[in-house]
Amino acid sequence: MRKINIGLIGHGVVGAGVVKFLQKRQNYIRDKYRVEFVVRTICDRSIHRKDTRGLGAAKLTKKIGDVLDDRSAEVIIELIGGLHPAKEIVTTALRRGKHVVTANKVLIAHYGKELFQLAKKQNRQLYFEASVGAGVPIIKTITEGMVGNTYNRIYGIINGTCNFILTEMTKNKLSFTKALKLAQGKGFAESNPTLDINGMDSTHKLAILAYLAFGKFVKVSDIYTEGITHISHDDIAYAESLNLTIKLLAIAKRYENIVEARVHPTLIPKVHPLASISGIYNAFYLNANPLGDVLLSGEGAGQMAAASGVVSDLLNLASRGADANLLCNLYSEAPNFRIRKIDQIKTRFYIRFMATDKPGVLGKITSVLGRYGIGLNSVTQPAHTAAWAVPVVMLTDYTLEKNLRLALKKIWELPIVKSKPVAIRMEKLW
Amino acid sequence: MRKINIGLIGHGVVGAGVVKFLQKRQNYIRDKYRVEFVVRTICDRSIHRKDTRGLGAAKLTKKIGDVLDDRSAEVIIELIGGLHPAKEIVTTALRRGKHVVTANKVLIAHYGKELFQLAKKQNRQLYFEASVGAGVPIIKTITEGMVGNTYNRIYGIINGTCNFILTEMTKNKLSFTKALKLAQGKGFAESNPTLDINGMDSTHKLAILAYLAFGKFVKVSDIYTEGITHISHDDIAYAESLNLTIKLLAIAKRYENIVEARVHPTLIPKVHPLASISGIYNAFYLNANPLGDVLLSGEGAGQMAAASGVVSDLLNLASRGADANLLCNLYSEAPNFRIRKIDQIKTRFYIRFMATDKPGVLGKITSVLGRYGIGLNSVTQPAHTAAWAVPVVMLTDYTLEKNLRLALKKIWELPIVKSKPVAIRMEKLW
Repeated sequence: MRKINIGLIGHGVVGAGVVKFLQKRQNYIRDKYRVEFVVRTICDRSIHRKDTRGLGAAKLTKKIGDVLDDRSAEVIIELIGGLHPAKEIVTTALRRGKHVVTANKVLIAHYGKELFQLAKKQNRQLYFEASVGAGVPIIKTITEGMVGNTYNRIYGIINGTCNFILTEMTKNKLSFTKALKLAQGKGFAESNPTLDINGMDSTHKLAILAYLAFGKFVKVSDIYTEGITHISHDDIAYAESLNLTIKLLAIAKRYENIVEARVHPTLIPKVHPLASISGIYNAFYLNANPLGDVLLSGEGAGQMAAASGVVSDLLNLASRGADANLLCNLYSEAPNFRIRKIDQIKTRFYIRFMATDKPGVLGKITSVLGRYGIGLNSVTQPAHTAAWAVPVVMLTDYTLEKNLRLALKKIWELPIVKSKPVAIRMEKLW
Repeated sequence: MRKINIGLIGHGVVGAGVVKFLQKRQNYIRDKYRVEFVVRTICDRSIHRKDTRGLGAAKLTKKIGDVLDDRSAEVIIELIGGLHPAKEIVTTALRRGKHVVTANKVLIAHYGKELFQLAKKQNRQLYFEASVGAGVPIIKTITEGMVGNTYNRIYGIINGTCNFILTEMTKNKLSFTKALKLAQGKGFAESNPTLDINGMDSTHKLAILAYLAFGKFVKVSDIYTEGITHISHDDIAYAESLNLTIKLLAIAKRYENIVEARVHPTLIPKVHPLASISGIYNAFYLNANPLGDVLLSGEGAGQMAAASGVVSDLLNLASRGADANLLCNLYSEAPNFRIRKIDQIKTRFYIRFMATDKPGVLGKITSVLGRYGIGLNSVTQPAHTAAWAVPVVMLTDYTLEKNLRLALKKIWELPIVKSKPVAIRMEKLW
């Protein structure tokens, strides 16, 4: 029986879940994998206020140093989140020859490169499955399951809060505000949901996925990010009638030496499997060569889902040597790739205008679009109740984002257009 | 740079794909993973008739012994399929201290237990990712990605040929015969498609998945198997109007010490993500504790998809020590589980009768069902064109399969019933 001593830093929701998981499955893990995980030390700044029954013989402390100084600890689990002192914890642990398991997406998105280099140098493992998709093993799928493939595209529904809100707005016709309240009531959204609904949570996760798939970090600041707060119920309904569903997608694509990475509300065909991913579920749609399209989906948040990711890391770590080398591997096929800025990206767009109900309106709008070389696939005037203006919905051909923005600015200046034009990007996905 | 010598037995479609993959990605694999795979020997009984250009310096042979006798080979790849001599090849390779990678579902389904024990004893690795779902990493997901979880249920669409046929019958209203011809024309179905369409291919794969999930082998002969040849276009259309889609599902469930395993056409809700898995795609829907529902989908067949699974095995093997122990682990939480026979399984059913168009017909049918304790959720009389009889479609409540069979036998004896009753099992999935 191998015994592995662990130091746990951060006994919040996920940390408590990990302890619970290890306790509940102790016999199973011991009998099946011949390993015993012993949580030696638990550090949490509010440990004195927590219910610590059931933590067994673990030493409880408020001092991070107490955990890092435990020479018997082979593995440090970092679950405090954020950049600092998480970075210092992980760095110190690796330097002291310990393996590290973390669920910290912000840390890996910002300092992954440096931490991976350190882990390699120290010949220690750094695992972070729960940082994206909680226990849904997307990181393992990219780095190990499909290893050897070339990744072309990643589409992710990677924020459960946003997906829940958009699902409620679509299926139950709730307003954004009501859907958000419902999410908070059910515990799916933070009391301060800013990082979820403004897209930044997805952006951090996308940075990690893009690195794993393309072998090179895309800076968080290089990822165009647009949240879901401006999505109106009308647009959801109009899109629905065009057989389109709206999702907050995290998208990364590679074309030889060029990488695109962006997070924004996206219209996708209703018949695509991603369109059926509803509520708090996360999903990852990968296109790789030669394997083709692969979809992985599951609950991407929640105490035990995240704990499942951490425990999977522990068991994988325990089952192989320190020299296992598929994860923190910084080689890239395209070491000099450059980021394509959002202005230079070509997509199709759903655009909607509220315009006066007079002859010639469509002609004026399409002539502006034509001047910027923007072709149209369809024009519809959905049923509406507004008296002051009528909605006009257009689906464009592939167009440079920059041109679309310029055209919309001109259109908004037309006296016949009565509200700011709405534009939502579309993806064909296949 | 680590050099790993390989012996390849079986240079058919997949074998040639593996060689092609390794050649095409040679630089990438060397630069990223610091390993070089050298295919030293290739054995195929028809090697003299093959195009062997591009096989480099590999020794080509018809003798299996030439491969197994190569003392420098660390890994043997077995791709000839079938039970014999595949079993002897794998056994000999492990006994001689070599790792083994195979895509042989029949072999693992029948002799997995014994081969895993041998691999453990020899402290060698036995990988078989491509045996189920080709390169879609379902085996890794169960054994490593979600490791630590308890598996409750598996639903798999694991035969691309059947899924393609059912998709064509549903979407393009083809007959079974025409859909099968189309599949053969596109190279998705074998010239002898028996093992695909009678369900046995799925059964072999399910045996492997059930073992991995529950830690114990279910004998192939203990898995109830029903193919898709009896599925009529009418039933697809009637089910469609009830918002149900038909899929050939491989199902394994565990209730404490009881395991159910079966393969049969199954009606599932159209809104379920599995319903959107169409054409040659495979999909795996797992329910586990605590992670919940996880869906994994991708192309489950084809030369390069299968080769992708084999190469992933090679790279995983190369990246860890011989003592990595998550895969061939024969421990079970429920060592004494028993198989629930199909007669004892409770499901809901779609049943259809062709009956004379007279008052009192429904009453007679429902009274027989009532006698066997079978409740109904809905009764419909779909639009039809037959003059000789009218279709009656019923969705039952949960009922014991045995009772349903007895009831259908009695109903078939009623003079008012004009054709053999059709029964298709349903799964709620959530």
